[in-house]
Amino acid sequence: MSESAAASQRLAFVQNHLQVAACSNKEEPRKKTPVESMSEEREKATFDVRALTYFLDGGEKYTKIREKFMMELERDPTFRMYDMYDVTKDEIRVRTMEKFRTIVHYVSAEPVPIFTMRMQTISLIDPGFWTRFGVHYGLFFGALRGSATSAQFSHWVSKGALALNGMVGCFAMTELGHGSNVAGLETTATFDEAADQFIIHTPTVTATKWWIGGAAHTATHCVVFAQLYVRGKRYGTKSFVVQLRDTRTYTLMPGVNIGDIGKKMGRDGIDNGWIQFTNVRIPRTNMLMKHTKVSRAGEVKEPPMAQLTYGALIQGRVAMVIDSGNIAKKAVTIAGRYAAVRRQFQSNPHDVQETKLIDYAIHQYRLMPILAMAYAFHFTGVETQKLYDDLMDKLESTQPGDAALQDTLETLKETHATSAGLKAFCTWSTLNAIEACRQTLGGHGYSAYTGLATTYNDFAVHCTWEGDNTILTLQSGRYLVSCYREALAGKAQPEGVDYLNHLDTLLTQGCAVKTNEEILNFDIIQQAWGVVTANVVKKAGDDFAESLKQGMSPEAAYEECSQARLAAAKIHSFGYVFRRFAQAVKSAPEGLRAVLTKVCFLYGLYSIEQNAGFFLQYRYFTPSQMDYVRAQVNVHCREVRQEYIPLIDAFNYSDYMINSPLGVYDGNVYEKYFDQVKRQNPVGQPHPYLPLIQSLLRRDIEDDEPLEEDEEDDE
Amino acid sequence: MSESAAASQRLAFVQNHLQVAACSNKEEPRKKTPVESMSEEREKATFDVRALTYFLDGGEKYTKIREKFMMELERDPTFRMYDMYDVTKDEIRVRTMEKFRTIVHYVSAEPVPIFTMRMQTISLIDPGFWTRFGVHYGLFFGALRGSATSAQFSHWVSKGALALNGMVGCFAMTELGHGSNVAGLETTATFDEAADQFIIHTPTVTATKWWIGGAAHTATHCVVFAQLYVRGKRYGTKSFVVQLRDTRTYTLMPGVNIGDIGKKMGRDGIDNGWIQFTNVRIPRTNMLMKHTKVSRAGEVKEPPMAQLTYGALIQGRVAMVIDSGNIAKKAVTIAGRYAAVRRQFQSNPHDVQETKLIDYAIHQYRLMPILAMAYAFHFTGVETQKLYDDLMDKLESTQPGDAALQDTLETLKETHATSAGLKAFCTWSTLNAIEACRQTLGGHGYSAYTGLATTYNDFAVHCTWEGDNTILTLQSGRYLVSCYREALAGKAQPEGVDYLNHLDTLLTQGCAVKTNEEILNFDIIQQAWGVVTANVVKKAGDDFAESLKQGMSPEAAYEECSQARLAAAKIHSFGYVFRRFAQAVKSAPEGLRAVLTKVCFLYGLYSIEQNAGFFLQYRYFTPSQMDYVRAQVNVHCREVRQEYIPLIDAFNYSDYMINSPLGVYDGNVYEKYFDQVKRQNPVGQPHPYLPLIQSLLRRDIEDDEPLEEDEEDDE
Repeated sequence: MSESAAASQRLAFVQNHLQVAACSNKEEPRKKTPVESMSEEREKATFDVRALTYFLDGGEKYTKIREKFMMELERDPTFRMYDMYDVTKDEIRVRTMEKFRTIVHYVSAEPVPIFTMRMQTISLIDPGFWTRFGVHYGLFFGALRGSATSAQFSHWVSKGALALNGMVGCFAMTELGHGSNVAGLETTATFDEAADQFIIHTPTVTATKWWIGGAAHTATHCVVFAQLYVRGKRYGTKSFVVQLRDTRTYTLMPGVNIGDIGKKMGRDGIDNGWIQFTNVRIPRTNMLMKHTKVSRAGEVKEPPMAQLTYGALIQGRVAMVIDSGNIAKKAVTIAGRYAAVRRQFQSNPHDVQETKLIDYAIHQYRLMPILAMAYAFHFTGVETQKLYDDLMDKLESTQPGDAALQDTLETLKETHATSAGLKAFCTWSTLNAIEACRQTLGGHGYSAYTGLATTYNDFAVHCTWEGDNTILTLQSGRYLVSCYREALAGKAQPEGVDYLNHLDTLLTQGCAVKTNEEILNFDIIQQAWGVVTANVVKKAGDDFAESLKQGMSPEAAYEECSQARLAAAKIHSFGYVFRRFAQAVKSAPEGLRAVLTKVCFLYGLYSIEQNAGFFLQYRYFTPSQMDYVRAQVNVHCREVRQEYIPLIDAFNYSDYMINSPLGVYDGNVYEKYFDQVKRQNPVGQPHPYLPLIQSLLRRDIEDDEPLEEDEEDDE
Repeated sequence: MSESAAASQRLAFVQNHLQVAACSNKEEPRKKTPVESMSEEREKATFDVRALTYFLDGGEKYTKIREKFMMELERDPTFRMYDMYDVTKDEIRVRTMEKFRTIVHYVSAEPVPIFTMRMQTISLIDPGFWTRFGVHYGLFFGALRGSATSAQFSHWVSKGALALNGMVGCFAMTELGHGSNVAGLETTATFDEAADQFIIHTPTVTATKWWIGGAAHTATHCVVFAQLYVRGKRYGTKSFVVQLRDTRTYTLMPGVNIGDIGKKMGRDGIDNGWIQFTNVRIPRTNMLMKHTKVSRAGEVKEPPMAQLTYGALIQGRVAMVIDSGNIAKKAVTIAGRYAAVRRQFQSNPHDVQETKLIDYAIHQYRLMPILAMAYAFHFTGVETQKLYDDLMDKLESTQPGDAALQDTLETLKETHATSAGLKAFCTWSTLNAIEACRQTLGGHGYSAYTGLATTYNDFAVHCTWEGDNTILTLQSGRYLVSCYREALAGKAQPEGVDYLNHLDTLLTQGCAVKTNEEILNFDIIQQAWGVVTANVVKKAGDDFAESLKQGMSPEAAYEECSQARLAAAKIHSFGYVFRRFAQAVKSAPEGLRAVLTKVCFLYGLYSIEQNAGFFLQYRYFTPSQMDYVRAQVNVHCREVRQEYIPLIDAFNYSDYMINSPLGVYDGNVYEKYFDQVKRQNPVGQPHPYLPLIQSLLRRDIEDDEPLEEDEEDDE
């Protein structure tokens, strides 16, 4: 970047600095082009890139399906991406609606797992559309499926809720003054027995429904969360279907006031809105009554068993763990490919041309751990999806009263806490990784066209929605404390927190290796995480117990050990992710195991280095072993660097999907970047501030001068 | 936030979860309004807020000047900010030009230090304009001042370069393929002796001048960096004034091709452009010849002593250290004030209303260290400015041959390295702090109107320009290694790296306190940083020496210890900043010292906690002392929280400057936020995608069905 307010006289510095560099202009040896610089990286592969892609995708069949989706999207004019970095909020919303027609077609035409893969593919290039589409099918339709009686469900399907024909929905939970605490919502639904209706009402400014995706302009119906009042008694938050707009004229229904939330950090394709209800009447049967029921006579019936419906909450978190891996892959594809062709300075003065960024140790240290993390998150995503699928199978086959009920509830509790912790851990890590990758692009990272600025802005919301990351991490920490207390009481703990089953030996265990080299062993690294996690969890658990002993309530005691819980959940996630990665490596085809082992070591060692304080605090590693770990991080950065481009290629994202000229497969970054800039900003266009400049440069500077005093007046 | 693709059935979860919360609707006790929630925080001040403002500003006089600037800006229609989050790239560029006229007036009307304060104020609300203005005065005009002979300088001033009348300049250093390595630039300036002209030429695509602020549409002249060729010999990079456009018609000059770089991550008010020169001829005297000279006869004369001009480079970095503190203050003002009025969950079930965010331990842990950092960076900025001013005084009074020359060069070297390290350290930390503050706003942090998303996007470029942060940190680490080697050889080191003067005792020193409480002592914390920094620097120095011993060149040896250098520079900066803060506290007026001491302890302890690995690695603290440090971080978060709103108020930014409804002084956040959203997105506006929705919802779904086969055809 060349501009800054304060860097005067920089020229003088550089000019003089370079005096010495003068040399004659004799014929120089031929330099490698960017494309050649990229090609040579591909020759370094010690493994079959295609085989790794199949392994990542779960088999050749799925790779083919993904490739089919990528091609279909690339050839769909409504999904054109080359100009996405310049479109206005209005334009991007128009595009979003255009895409609906194409994608609605596949909702009914494709089996759910295949359609899910299609949407995952879309989420990578157009996260705003992905969310906008999810507002109807994930949130609105999902609410119907989860909370409507079967008669109600059939009714809304017949109205077009599944086919998106005749109606389109949104989901109004959060309010201007209320987010995570759903119990604190203010909107009311008061039963009018005489009319057999509910009156939906917004009593205060802070009760205004806020952030409601799709509400600003497109939704005709809404699932509204409101406090149920029957005969003057409050029954807590329930959900109600409220019509917002006439489905033909699109005028607002009486009593409904809606506005646009406006500009956001990212995902502007979603028309988030605010809604105020002023005594809006809806039929009693618009309350979703699968669980709580209100009869014609105003009797309220509560459901017998609620927990079995909790599972649904986990799905969104699993999706975000998977998205974290995918977006990390995309970011490191861009930064990694650019680093293979960008050259800067000569690390050796005798070199013919400047050195590739990736050949600097520090650049390897910046990027290789992110590449390793992308692999780690990929495998974590796969495993988390399996965990979720297993849970859903169990939940569907378990009824209240079953013998297996207790086991199912345990699994639910574990999966709930694990997914909460991982959602926070993976989205935070990926957000940081996007920014780190963006910064490795140097000045070009600040251009919208190189993609990572927008990726950052789109991704950032993952850290907040579906449970604020801090709150989720605390929940996960709370689960760990309770597992720890159970383990102390002798109860065996599930696989995810297996280390708590060996507290006797684990808490004081040091790294019992004879030579430092023995540290390079998956079992040792796993043990290291086990020991440290056990200690950090113990710290939180002991703090909690101490507070109880001092007479605090459990709630107050949990609050008191917040910081320790946060640390426990974070460390737990590192170890958990490493274990998923290590397991995947063990199950990898023979020909891939060597390279994946290196990548996995890098993830494990780098994570330990980043958390060195805990490993030293609990004396698992000695200071000199820690020095060895640090040194091995550098060694592994260098080793992974050897075939890092093939490792990136295995992610198998097409140039269209990457949508960044700096991340193109062939390495021809400069020409493609320049083309992109020129296509979006054609030369010779008129610009609106020309008259301002001209009048500025041609102004009469005497404007500023005072009128000369008339000397005679002074007399 | 309410939407996500995958969270189906969330409703069911929440609905059931809340069954228990049902209660009757008896009259509830009155709750505190947001404004009342804010007011009560102000009553907690144990110090005079106004006195702290004066102390921060350097005296009442300067507070008054800042307040005058804030009022002038607020009342200037061209500086209206309420709609800035919605303006397009074109609109914001028009605004930028409109502001030029006002601000140009003050360039000549105000003394430089006062004008600098004005620009610092502007940089906080409109960083894009600040930069755009700096392109002419800082870069273009600064280049003339630094590199033109006095005759050349007079010439360009007479053409209007100072008054911005008749011409406006830009500064073309970076190229598409070349950033930090100025020696690698490709643009050529070939001397044509016959014509007494230079021919400026862009030989390749990668030589295209890139990122040139002001070039796209506004600059008439440009200082161009190009490789000087005279009689076939290359003399390295020099600078040349090239006219880009006719100053009246604004058509491009022959051989000049210019385009718009287009959309960026932030600061879109700057019309960054690319430039290609095709054999553009300029008079020989357009080469800036204060240092290197080319005579009419083609003789090239090199300057005698270059280093004394390096000082200028430091100025931009000092400005960014100061900006880091100011932006951190702004971010924590928004997040801090919101946390005083936003309520969520009830930490005690008997409370009348929900609990303030700031009363949660974890929220204190998220925000209070950032508040402490803002104070730390403020005082570091003040000190760094002083260091710079002293250096400039020395440089101006020193001539080659002076007795004081060696001393001046030492000071230059130290200030150069210090400012490089601090620029990187402070801009990185502040960027992270902005995002951390944004996330504490929950969903509202994702709204453009709450300000921190834009602040992030605008600020991010600080990490790259004026020297990429990683490269600057490595430079700083290199300086530390060389100081360490000098110290080993017995040479006394300057104050900034004073710890290197006591290596004998320091390297193996542990914390010699009898009780943990004694750790709460500025001298102990300073010693802790000294010990740890000395060890980390030693590690880098020893790695370097080891590589030399193995026969590497110094360059290769430095490359080999990159990661250790990076760590050394980072740890050094932490200790350096703490020392600046502690010194400022000692010099504070009596009535402010108690509160500032708490804030300073929090900064010191939190920084140690974040880098616990090093303190344990080098055994300055024992694990149990480290536990004490961790516990004290929480204690100090709680203590600083007591009067954190007064501490924020002392920054004294007006609501206009903050430009976020969540950060308003009176705490009336919801109404102001809602007003802002409605003003920018009035209800009832037509929207362009209505027909798309209507046709989607009214489509004939049989579109998708196949033609029924005619059974007879099968026969």
